Amino acid sequence: MKLQELGEFKLTKLISEIIDKSRCPECDSWQRLSIGPGDDAAAWQSNNYIQLATTDTMVQDVHFDLDTVTWEELGWKALAVSLSDIAAMGGIPQYALVSLSLPVELEVEYISRLIESMTCLASKFETAIAGGNLTSAPNVVITTTLIGYSRGEILKRSTACAGDHIAVTGYLGASAAGLRNLLGKTTMNAKSQEILRRAHLHPIPRIKEGQALIQQGIRTAIDISDGLIADLNHICESSKLNAWIELEQVPVHPLVKLNFPDYQELALCGGEDYELLFTADKNAIDRARQVLSCPVTVIGEITEKSQPEHVALRDKKGNITPHEKEGWNHFGNGLSRAKLT
Amino acid sequence: MKLQELGEFKLTKLISEIIDKSRCPECDSWQRLSIGPGDDAAAWQSNNYIQLATTDTMVQDVHFDLDTVTWEELGWKALAVSLSDIAAMGGIPQYALVSLSLPVELEVEYISRLIESMTCLASKFETAIAGGNLTSAPNVVITTTLIGYSRGEILKRSTACAGDHIAVTGYLGASAAGLRNLLGKTTMNAKSQEILRRAHLHPIPRIKEGQALIQQGIRTAIDISDGLIADLNHICESSKLNAWIELEQVPVHPLVKLNFPDYQELALCGGEDYELLFTADKNAIDRARQVLSCPVTVIGEITEKSQPEHVALRDKKGNITPHEKEGWNHFGNGLSRAKLT
Repeated sequence: MKLQELGEFKLTKLISEIIDKSRCPECDSWQRLSIGPGDDAAAWQSNNYIQLATTDTMVQDVHFDLDTVTWEELGWKALAVSLSDIAAMGGIPQYALVSLSLPVELEVEYISRLIESMTCLASKFETAIAGGNLTSAPNVVITTTLIGYSRGEILKRSTACAGDHIAVTGYLGASAAGLRNLLGKTTMNAKSQEILRRAHLHPIPRIKEGQALIQQGIRTAIDISDGLIADLNHICESSKLNAWIELEQVPVHPLVKLNFPDYQELALCGGEDYELLFTADKNAIDRARQVLSCPVTVIGEITEKSQPEHVALRDKKGNITPHEKEGWNHFGNGLSRAKLT
Repeated sequence: MKLQELGEFKLTKLISEIIDKSRCPECDSWQRLSIGPGDDAAAWQSNNYIQLATTDTMVQDVHFDLDTVTWEELGWKALAVSLSDIAAMGGIPQYALVSLSLPVELEVEYISRLIESMTCLASKFETAIAGGNLTSAPNVVITTTLIGYSRGEILKRSTACAGDHIAVTGYLGASAAGLRNLLGKTTMNAKSQEILRRAHLHPIPRIKEGQALIQQGIRTAIDISDGLIADLNHICESSKLNAWIELEQVPVHPLVKLNFPDYQELALCGGEDYELLFTADKNAIDRARQVLSCPVTVIGEITEKSQPEHVALRDKKGNITPHEKEGWNHFGNGLSRAKLT
């Protein structure tokens, strides 16, 4: 069987199972490991805190096109996606390692701009770029590793409870809309285009917000990288529960709603918004709303597991709407099909 | 200017300078960072120990050819090179993150074999594979990140002293000879071929040996990845000193000496032996020799900086021999030219 037939999520599961079989119960490293493969970051108990580590890779012509992005944008985004994973754990980022695979015919100037942009974002979150790796390659591949910590609790995917409300920071769909603008013609005005472009290429990881969620007693979160439905699916899968989303409540970015007829699709499945999707009881979410400076919208509820499909969509009248598409599947054909009740 | 004109080492320097300019003296992460870009691993002070982190990338058709290596060998080597960086710091490895960029048409079975081989090596050194990343890509790229620690001291590149003896563990040249066998025809017998193949594709990182060096009071080491001369050059550069190597003393692997007329070249510049190259006073090296179960050979001496070229070669009579080649330069044309006095 080929990877494209198995798909990303089953491959992830297969790899996790192989790693799990190798678990050594007597080893200190395994004993301390509280979260292995399958969350936004790995987590293990250090002396006085929980250590976090995550890694992400961006590949030329898979995640970006050098004809449409600047080197500054590329550097920013490559680091932002890993910082966002630390944000989704409620962690404090500390150190980044940057591995660059680069064609030898690239201009040195480009790499300076890429690294300068990374240092700019790293500084914003008091993160030191501590090392990395350089190698030649036929196409550009950037892997960023982020190491951080949390003093006490962390945000996990596996801790949702039936009855939890589901909430999301910020607005959704702008990143996917920005990507669509990059790929094709658009009649939007330049300022709107620029806003959507920045949403796609210059995301601001929700570091402070993740830490604030923990302070308000929230324990379940993920960042929206694959797409709202796909990422809620990850929470449901890890927590062994179901969920529904009320379509009308999903906070679609105003520019997306205004300019794209399929705005709902972009907000539900577009991905790469790097907003935080979290679940908690109503009171905790109300408290979070008060302390966060970004919008917090309740969009649905976690339910007992009664269906094999995790996430259902509800319209205003409470009717369940089937949904045809899932989020990004690296080893499928882009957006793969997932049935919903 | 293009990357291939600048070369790997100047690009590394340029990137380090950009990162260094972004240093934030008030930030906790920067304050704790004792080793940033430019050693085998990054190091920072944690509460009771020194934390270590390193990352390495292997790219299809740059570092390996899928026609000549097995998936087990690929998995083993990808993890071994990062473990070797922790060994070169005298550290204890704890956690690995594995990022795989894979063509969608690959067989799932291959990836199972790759991961199983990684877990096998990880278990050997009580390291937990704690997470990673999966993405599709036109060619295979594997990035491994290793996180480890040291309880007290670490081995650095920058701590060599004039008068230090230079020593190396094990034998050199076997990995480069193994690579040459993979690339071309050979008349060697199957058993010898297999030994050299394993030296190239199945290196055993010198984890215990690195820790033992620290216990014997040694503070300066690097692992031989670029090649003996290139890596000694890194020590000299970091320590702002010169060095000479006595050619006859270099411990060439017996099979390399027997089968390759240019055995000296393979041992000096071949690289990827993943042996430890270290410097210390004679007594410390004698103590190390007694406690290590592998061969330890003194091959030269660190000297005051009197020449712009760092490493000189001496023959039996004490004559200085010019040397034409340096080690692997990722952004040059393979082996690049470096003048020596």
